[in-house]
Parts: sequence; C-alpha cells; structure tokens
Amino acid sequence: MSRRSDNRAAKPVPQRAYGQVKRRLAPVEVISADQVEAIHLAALRVLDETGIRVLDGGARDLFRGAGARVDDLMVRFDPGMVAERLRTVPATFRLAARNPLHDLALGGQDMVFASVGEPAYVMDLAGGRREGSLAEMEDYLRLVQVLNVIHQEGGGPFEPMDLPAATRHLDIYSSQIRLLDKNWQTQTLGHARTMDGLEMAAIGMGQSFEEMAARPCLLGIINTNSPLQLDVPMAEGLMTMAAHGQVNVITPFTLAGAMVPVSLAGALVLQHAEALAGIVLTQVVRPGVPVMYGGFTSNVDMMSGSPAFGTPEYARAAMASGQLARHIGVPFRSSNVTSANAVDAQAAYESQMAIWGAVMGGVHLLNHAAGWMHGGLTASFEKLLLDAEMLQMMQVVLEPISTDPTELALAAIAEVGPGGHFFGTQHTLDRYREAFHRPMLSDRTPHEAWKAAGSIGTVERAAMVWPKLLAEYQEPVLPVDRAKALAAYVARRKAEGGAPMN
Amino acid sequence: MSRRSDNRAAKPVPQRAYGQVKRRLAPVEVISADQVEAIHLAALRVLDETGIRVLDGGARDLFRGAGARVDDLMVRFDPGMVAERLRTVPATFRLAARNPLHDLALGGQDMVFASVGEPAYVMDLAGGRREGSLAEMEDYLRLVQVLNVIHQEGGGPFEPMDLPAATRHLDIYSSQIRLLDKNWQTQTLGHARTMDGLEMAAIGMGQSFEEMAARPCLLGIINTNSPLQLDVPMAEGLMTMAAHGQVNVITPFTLAGAMVPVSLAGALVLQHAEALAGIVLTQVVRPGVPVMYGGFTSNVDMMSGSPAFGTPEYARAAMASGQLARHIGVPFRSSNVTSANAVDAQAAYESQMAIWGAVMGGVHLLNHAAGWMHGGLTASFEKLLLDAEMLQMMQVVLEPISTDPTELALAAIAEVGPGGHFFGTQHTLDRYREAFHRPMLSDRTPHEAWKAAGSIGTVERAAMVWPKLLAEYQEPVLPVDRAKALAAYVARRKAEGGAPMN
Repeated sequence: MSRRSDNRAAKPVPQRAYGQVKRRLAPVEVISADQVEAIHLAALRVLDETGIRVLDGGARDLFRGAGARVDDLMVRFDPGMVAERLRTVPATFRLAARNPLHDLALGGQDMVFASVGEPAYVMDLAGGRREGSLAEMEDYLRLVQVLNVIHQEGGGPFEPMDLPAATRHLDIYSSQIRLLDKNWQTQTLGHARTMDGLEMAAIGMGQSFEEMAARPCLLGIINTNSPLQLDVPMAEGLMTMAAHGQVNVITPFTLAGAMVPVSLAGALVLQHAEALAGIVLTQVVRPGVPVMYGGFTSNVDMMSGSPAFGTPEYARAAMASGQLARHIGVPFRSSNVTSANAVDAQAAYESQMAIWGAVMGGVHLLNHAAGWMHGGLTASFEKLLLDAEMLQMMQVVLEPISTDPTELALAAIAEVGPGGHFFGTQHTLDRYREAFHRPMLSDRTPHEAWKAAGSIGTVERAAMVWPKLLAEYQEPVLPVDRAKALAAYVARRKAEGGAPMN
Repeated sequence: MSRRSDNRAAKPVPQRAYGQVKRRLAPVEVISADQVEAIHLAALRVLDETGIRVLDGGARDLFRGAGARVDDLMVRFDPGMVAERLRTVPATFRLAARNPLHDLALGGQDMVFASVGEPAYVMDLAGGRREGSLAEMEDYLRLVQVLNVIHQEGGGPFEPMDLPAATRHLDIYSSQIRLLDKNWQTQTLGHARTMDGLEMAAIGMGQSFEEMAARPCLLGIINTNSPLQLDVPMAEGLMTMAAHGQVNVITPFTLAGAMVPVSLAGALVLQHAEALAGIVLTQVVRPGVPVMYGGFTSNVDMMSGSPAFGTPEYARAAMASGQLARHIGVPFRSSNVTSANAVDAQAAYESQMAIWGAVMGGVHLLNHAAGWMHGGLTASFEKLLLDAEMLQMMQVVLEPISTDPTELALAAIAEVGPGGHFFGTQHTLDRYREAFHRPMLSDRTPHEAWKAAGSIGTVERAAMVWPKLLAEYQEPVLPVDRAKALAAYVARRKAEGGAPMN
C-alpha cells in the first residue's frame, strides 16, 4: 500500500452529517386527480365484488366482526367500510430508536432511507455472490450504522446461512439491537418471529409493551400474495404488530404481466385493492395504529418472464402509487431496486430511476434504499456504498436554496467584475468548505492522471471505501443488564427450538 | 463468434419508434416564485450597474442603438430595455430537418434530445481515449442517425484531428448534411464559420436564406465568457445567426466557485444576467428571432479545482434555471453531463442526475443528451448507447397512462381471481408485446446464468451493440445536385483557406 493510501486511510471518509431528509418539493403527478379516483374506485369494486382470499381464520373473524362479508375463505367489503377504517390511519407518525437522536419521523415532508432487507445472498467485489455468514452480516450492519445517510436498518441485510433456520431470526435481532443505535425493521413472517422481535425490542429499549405501543419502535413489511390473497404467516405478522401498536407496511408484491394485469392501471388497481385490505385489517385490530402504503409494482421482462426492476414502468408506478397513497391519506413506501448483475452502469441507472421516481412521487419510506442487487436476491457491500452516494446526492438536491442578499452575491459580483474569477474572493473563502457535496465515490481526476493512477473504476473505489468505513465503526453502548437479558432471551428461545417454518 | 451471437446480429437492435418526447408533467420548482423574482431582479441590477464587457465593436454599436449605455467596452442597460426586448422572444418555435419527419418542435411540452457536441477526443472500450478521425466521426454521426431517441445532432461529435483546423468545420458540416436527415447543430465561433454553416445548410436544404429565415433549420450554442464578458467570435456568431433568422442558445458557462460565485443563488444571478444580455442582443439584431436560455451552472470540486458535472448542485441549478427561463418566457436548454472517467456507475448516476434534473426542470433542449464523457472533453461510443438507453427510459416515464376501462382490467382481475396468474389471459396476450420497454442494454438474466455466459457488464454490452446499430445505418438520399453543390462549396472554401482562427 502506498504512502498516499495510508494517508487516505487515516482520514475519515467524507459524509454528510446524520439527519433525515425533508422532501420540500411538491410531488410529481403522473396521473390526473380523476385517474386517481378511477383507480381507487376500481380497487374498491374489486374488494366489494371479487374480494380477497384470507387464509388465516383469525383474520377472517376480525374482518367479519368489522362488517365484511365472509364466504369460506373469501372476504368482501363495501366501500363504506374501507372509508370508515381509513379515517383512523395517522397521516404522520414517529418511530423510536435506541439512540433518541436517531428517532424517525414519517409522513408529511419527512423521508426515511432504509438499508436493504432480507436477501438470500451477499456479495462483494472480491468474493462474488455467495451465502452469507453471521460475521459478514454483522459487518454489513456496522456499515449501516456508520453511513449517515441511512436512517433505518432494513430487517436483516441478508440471511446468515451458517445459522439454523428456526433460530436465525433471534441472532439477527440480537445483532440489530447490539450493533445499531438506529431504528431497525423487524421480521413479520408468522406470530412467533414477530413476537420474538417485539420481546427483544422491548429488552433493547428497556421498555414495556405498553410503553412501546405508545411510542412505536418497530416497523415490518407485510407482502400480500398477489393476486388478492393474504396468507397465514403474513396475516399473523400483521395482526401481532398492529395489536402491539407497531407499524405494518402493506406492500403487495405486484409484477405487471404476472401476478397483476400487464396494464399499469390494472396493476395499480390490484396493488391498491390489496393495500387497502391490509390497511383496513390493521385498523380493525387497533384503530389509529400507524400503517404505511407500500407500492412495489414493477413488470416482468416479457421475453424471459424474469422480474425487471428499476424500469421506467417502475418509476412511474412509484409516482402514481404516491398519488394513490396521498388520496387515502396513508404514508407511502417505495424502494430502490435493480435487476443488474454487476455494480456497474445498469445498477446505477436502474437505482436512479427508482430513487428519483420514489422521491418525486412523494415517498416517506424508501425501503431497500441501499445495497439491493439481483432483483432483491443479494445484498452487495459495494452497492451499499454506491447507493449511499446517490442518496447523499438526492439529499443535496432537496436542501433549501437561499436567496438571501449575501447569497445573491451582488457585492462579490461587482468586486470581481467582468473577466475575473471568484476563487480568491472573501465570499468564496467564507463558503467553499461547505458549498458543495464532497463525494465518497465520485472521481473527477483528469483522464490522463486517472489512467496513470491505474484506471480505478467506481465499483473498485467502493470496494476500497467500505473497509475504511468499517474501521470507523464504534459499537454503541448497550446497558449491561439489557445485553444480559437479551442473551438470556435468545438462549431460552433457542432451547425451545425457535420458530420453525411449517 | 457463437451461433447465438450470429442470430442476435441478424435481428435489429430493439428501439422505440422515432418521435419527440412530450414533457407532460408540471415542472418541479426548487425555488419559490419570490426567489425567482429576486434572482431576476439581481441580474437586472448587475446589467444596470456593473454591465457586461462586450469585446466586439459591432455588438456594442447594436446595444448602443437599442438604448444601452456604452462606456469603452462596458455595456449597461436598464431593466426596461430588457423587458421590452424579451417581449419579442417566441415561446415556441420549430426547426426544419432535411427529412420533414424529423422537423423539431421546441418550447411548451416539446423536448428535443441532442447528441454530444464538440469534444476534443473520442473513446471506445477497445481503443480508449484518443484523437479522433473523420472516418470515426462519420461513424458516430451514423449512430446518431440510427438512434431513434436522438432527435438532433449536437454540432459535430468530436474533432476530426486528421484534418487541418482552418477547414475542418467544412468537412464536419459536409458529413452532417450528407449522413443525417435529422436536424444538426452548427458552429458559431466567428463570422466565417457561422456563414459557412448557413451557406452549406442552404445547399443541403435546397433553400434560399430567405426561405431558411422563415423556417429556421440551424441552431448554435453561444457561450458567454463568464463572468460578464462576450468575446468577439461568440458575438459574431450570435449576430450572424440571428440576422439570418436562425436560433442561438445563449449559454453562460458558469462554474460556481470559479467564474461565478460559490453560492447557488449568486451563480444563477450571473448566469441569468449573461443569458439576458445575449437574448437581448438577438432581439436587437432581429426582433422575433427564436432564441433559447441555456443553463449550464455546475460547480468546481473545491479540493482539486476541477469542474464537477452531474452533481446534485447541477441538478438543482437545472431545475432553478428552468424556472428562470419560464419567468422570462424563453425556451430552456440544459445538458446531460458527467465528470466520470469510465462508462461505469459514476457515469450513469451523474448522467441520471442531469437528465432527471433537466426533465423535471422543464427542459426543451437537452443538449449533449447522449455521448458526453470527461466533463465534455470526450465523446464515447459506449456512452452514446448508455445515454440512449437512459433517454428511452425517460421517454417511457413520460408517456401517458391510460385508465380507460379496459386498462383498469376489472374483467381480467375477476377472471383470474385470487392466487391465479395473468400470463395466459387474453388481456395480457393482447398487450404484452408493447406493454413494457424493451431495453437495448439492460440485462436481467438470473445471476448464475449471467456468470456462466461470461459476466458481461453493461459497458461491454454497449460495445457489442453499437457496431450492430452501425450495421443498420442507411445513408439518406441527398439529391445529386445538392451533393455536387456541397462538394463544390467545400472545395472552393478550402482553396480560399477556410476560416483560420486568429
């Protein structure tokens, strides 16, 4: 390693300060108000006429009790019931973190960027794609903690395949609680996993379930099984979360041309119908509990049948989904997605399509905001950095622009005059350190110098930067009694066999 | 080459049909109406108090005749004169192409995507960066002709360095006219080069100057020398173009922290002041002549002093510039720019920042929309393809979304029912071929299959696609008499020595 590299390693990686991003801009509207209403009414008609198949008996009972018509597994409800239940959904809410400085606001202009959640594989440039281990997963969590532009951990970055399936979630929760003082997403696949998340979060926060319900700290993703089906594990997760006052994000997994119609409007009708069904159920379980509207409509590649992400169809579905979510007054979740195989130009342009589509669409939770690759099958160390860079750039785009007299700089303009330059002016000297975004990854070296230095590309730079960030990590202190209680809980639940999948 | 590759080569590269893109969405406003007015008034004050240094005596005389105060080289004018001259600027205009199907509309919701113009170097993946030749430049022009998403050629993609400097522009014009039936940008550096463009365009169109003035076919870029200076060659180009009824794009080259203040508001004040000065001059020369407002404000990298492109500062400057242009009723030009050295993730994310910033900002001419690398020093064959892919994606984002009853797909939804799939439904079969964008470059192969096929990245795919597109090129027929006249003009002007730079 050269002296220059050594010097670089000693300096911290440049980052913007931690802070949530305000989306100050009016959202972009890709469909008219009439079209929003047409999709909303069509979705209500689907719920009224076709209905949704609910595989969980308890969920069907709750729906029935709230006025839905239940026929065998099918649940149908009229538009009035939906409207009534939507009235109790909060437009904004907060999520508590172990470190109160990392508490989160959602809804309104407040956006949360969450790291990638739950892929099967991990990859980095050196090792390629592989099954991940707990040790690697913990390194990934440390990077999530260090990266200021990531506000929330996304539910376990990838599966630690060196651990048994039935108890793996206990180790993931334990790592999330110990290694992060940021908010983290929990797992909602079935009652047992969800309860383990609640119990362990309570230990980590040093709170009772009542305190947690008053000040939620857990958010979990609920995927309906499109088309028009809610399975038992997801229904259990939803009901358990809602009953404890925690946040469900109802996200139909809707690929146009496969589980939903090939037409964007038709895909949105089914997305909206399923989201409404899930949102209604949360309010039946516990009126007023925070819940989010998840938009995840993308399309299949009609040549291969493979899912396609970060497509233009995805971007405009995200913007239309934001309109639908605002129409019903529910905070909106979208995602940063790509189908790319390498952390190269395709990964970047697909992710930018998704990020811009979401932010212009008025997103509140940008899920999988950093690290997602391979259509969600893989978490990448370099993509985590690439996305963090792009998110920081979006943060700067959204910062307020001052036109105060000193910023208009008329005095400096008069002082410099025609043909001069502003490098040495006091106006520049007063501002240059903070004036422009300092990138983590972008390289603006003149081309010949860049070649002479080895023609190092963006993904290679990302591979050099993340180990430096990892070296900057400092474990946040968890009080000893909580750490002990956490370990005892995990030990007990492992002895009981964990939560086997049926 | 494998059999599979052979088969692929025989099929045309998938592209969307040729057609201008309508920006149907309301532009994003990053500053308030009051802030727009504050910047506008500050710019007027700069022009009134400091003024602009105009090095060309003819231009100064024109300004003086129109009521400006001229003191030595300095030209100052009051806000009333600016307002009066802005009144004659057309809000929309058309540009004729050799093929009337390629005529262009600018302003309103109509957008034009132009290819990269005038870098010094060329590069491709196989050969790296180098000085270009006429033969390579002609291949680049052929790709511009073939790529449907490029509506206008951008003024010569790079310098053919195998030709002498004084007559090179004649060969470039000749290639543009012969190889393209799309509209092309001309060169405006000095009176002689501008006149050669006019003369040769007239030959190529088979029109008189009067016919061309009534139906403009030439657009040229005018860069002011920031801060606050208009040099002789640019003034000559501007006046010559305007006098002949052709379109100037007044584009101050404003890097915040160098030629303009480090503050975004201050940078925009100077950009706006200089753009106003140039726009006023066009209307003095020929009231009602079309002219565009060019926004090119970016920032320097304050660590190295290098220009930085595709930055978040650039994206928000583009959106604010669109607001300023709309404020004065002048069609708006922005650009697709990057500082990246390789056609990799950085190139893609910086270009996406620029494209989204421009389109959301209400751009009418997206200049350098495809091919630009290295801060404008280099035209890249693979970047041309990468940008074309990203532009096609933006085209799809902006397409209208139908919510007609058949698109809402209620019948198909009822038919498929819960837990089914839409692959085989008539609703899907009727639409799947055209339902989704078919990419030229994106690869959605499952990861293991992608690795087995050689782990081919995006830039490598671009390097495989552009030769196929080049093979699809067909030279548009130029009537023999025009071709002869063109050759005779070039021969005569070469014999005269061309247009040496002084």
